[in-house]
Amino acid sequence: MPGMTEGLRAELADATNAVEDCLARLLPEVSTPEARLFDAMRYATLNGGKRLRPFLVLTTARMFNVSEGAALRVASAVEMVHSYSLVHDDLPAMDNDDMRRGRPSCHKQFDEATAILAGDALLTRSFEVLANVSTHPDPAVRIDLVNALAQASGPNGMVGGQMIDLLTERENSAREGLDVAAITRMHQMKTGRLIGFSCTAGAILGKAPAQLRHALSAYAHDLGLAFQIVDDLLDVEGDPGEMGKSAGKDAAAGKVTFVSLLGTDRAREQARILSAQAVEHLKPFDGEADRLRDVAAYVLDRRS
Amino acid sequence: MPGMTEGLRAELADATNAVEDCLARLLPEVSTPEARLFDAMRYATLNGGKRLRPFLVLTTARMFNVSEGAALRVASAVEMVHSYSLVHDDLPAMDNDDMRRGRPSCHKQFDEATAILAGDALLTRSFEVLANVSTHPDPAVRIDLVNALAQASGPNGMVGGQMIDLLTERENSAREGLDVAAITRMHQMKTGRLIGFSCTAGAILGKAPAQLRHALSAYAHDLGLAFQIVDDLLDVEGDPGEMGKSAGKDAAAGKVTFVSLLGTDRAREQARILSAQAVEHLKPFDGEADRLRDVAAYVLDRRS
Repeated sequence: MPGMTEGLRAELADATNAVEDCLARLLPEVSTPEARLFDAMRYATLNGGKRLRPFLVLTTARMFNVSEGAALRVASAVEMVHSYSLVHDDLPAMDNDDMRRGRPSCHKQFDEATAILAGDALLTRSFEVLANVSTHPDPAVRIDLVNALAQASGPNGMVGGQMIDLLTERENSAREGLDVAAITRMHQMKTGRLIGFSCTAGAILGKAPAQLRHALSAYAHDLGLAFQIVDDLLDVEGDPGEMGKSAGKDAAAGKVTFVSLLGTDRAREQARILSAQAVEHLKPFDGEADRLRDVAAYVLDRRS
Repeated sequence: MPGMTEGLRAELADATNAVEDCLARLLPEVSTPEARLFDAMRYATLNGGKRLRPFLVLTTARMFNVSEGAALRVASAVEMVHSYSLVHDDLPAMDNDDMRRGRPSCHKQFDEATAILAGDALLTRSFEVLANVSTHPDPAVRIDLVNALAQASGPNGMVGGQMIDLLTERENSAREGLDVAAITRMHQMKTGRLIGFSCTAGAILGKAPAQLRHALSAYAHDLGLAFQIVDDLLDVEGDPGEMGKSAGKDAAAGKVTFVSLLGTDRAREQARILSAQAVEHLKPFDGEADRLRDVAAYVLDRRS
């Protein structure tokens, strides 16, 4: 992928394979009457996604000498939550997307009812995975993970952000109130909180001091926003061939984005500032956090 | 309600009020842009439901001298899961029910997208509530609760049972394979596992010996099945006035039920046997479990 160092590219490929294997083990094929549910859960997750969140879990876990087996379980749990949110977002009542990553979305491949249930089951399974003793021998660590994931993905996190996003798409009145502060809060809830969990889970698993956990949380905050701003820029400036999707969708839909609010120049400048800020937060880790610095650079330079 | 002792009636009323208060606190009204999500979550839960599951949590928690505050949080978490399942079940793509407990169902009162998100948010919030230190000071107890609730409500529990139920409603081939063993398994997954959690959560909170926890689990298993068989009987024999819904819906829909498989006489006999078996499992508790014996009797005699 453009914008990636060789080291980052290789590690991301390794992480993608390892997470895919772990997900396949945690979501087995079954021959019982509910087989269709497991098939849909597997379809929605084992699909060659970018695996950015799992990669962040694995990378930060390594910084605290966490066993790869434990980190992979947490990475898989995060990816289940991310995947469930995409399955539900794609439903006709929501974004009504027939395609996802070049394949029919879950409700097109199966049906709406199965997609709703598969999303519900993936969300529930993610907590089951975190709660299981295989994730960490210390119950205090496991409950810390459950608490953090629930907060990141619940009504004050991902689902709340999704609600705001839907309202602003549908209601002129909601759209008009959307300034930079409001759109920042929405994205922070909708995607930032789960990225935040992904960057701090390794610190939780490694029982790192609160100060280091907070540093990673601050890194994730700035990284997530930079990522979103670049998303908005790519929609305006991106090469449809490289992105694998059409550009200009936001403008056509009348969406409020960082670019529509700030213009492309100030938006790009803002992304740069955030990426640099993200790297600043990594100071306490010295060379240990080089891979996270690569990610902050990649987020700026990516073309898809 | 007919079939209830005075003591049971009074305690159920108290539990209903206490759980309603606790749910209202755990699902606050907010004035932030995602207010609609919280409104829908409150609408779906603060609705005067029967609160059977919370009542079972509170009753068994009392047997192990658990503080009422802790028990109420767990009871509320269970009710959030139960409520989310109803919100999603009512969706047009699922059972397409416009009414729930005499009011418009969540997607009719709000809209489909909001109902999907409110269900997702209730499920996530339930784990957040269990994981919070206010539920129990010991993280091992909290993770035990999370693990048990996730198992009860995930793909091997409630959601899996719902998948089977949907398939048997839609596909003749699935319906033809449905014998007593298969329908028992389906109901055990769809509703039995969550009733099982409700009956054992008090034992988890009170760190009861495994043997007592298993006794309550066995009680819940038989109670849940008896409850379902009586449901099927009421659909055939019930008084529509007392039930608040029309009878004969199952037969009209061509549904396979315990009554369609066994006939009314054998089904009633089976419910009696299960209720008696449920009571048998309570032996280790002596007089401490009298209220659970009342519930087992009520389940048989109820007319709605």
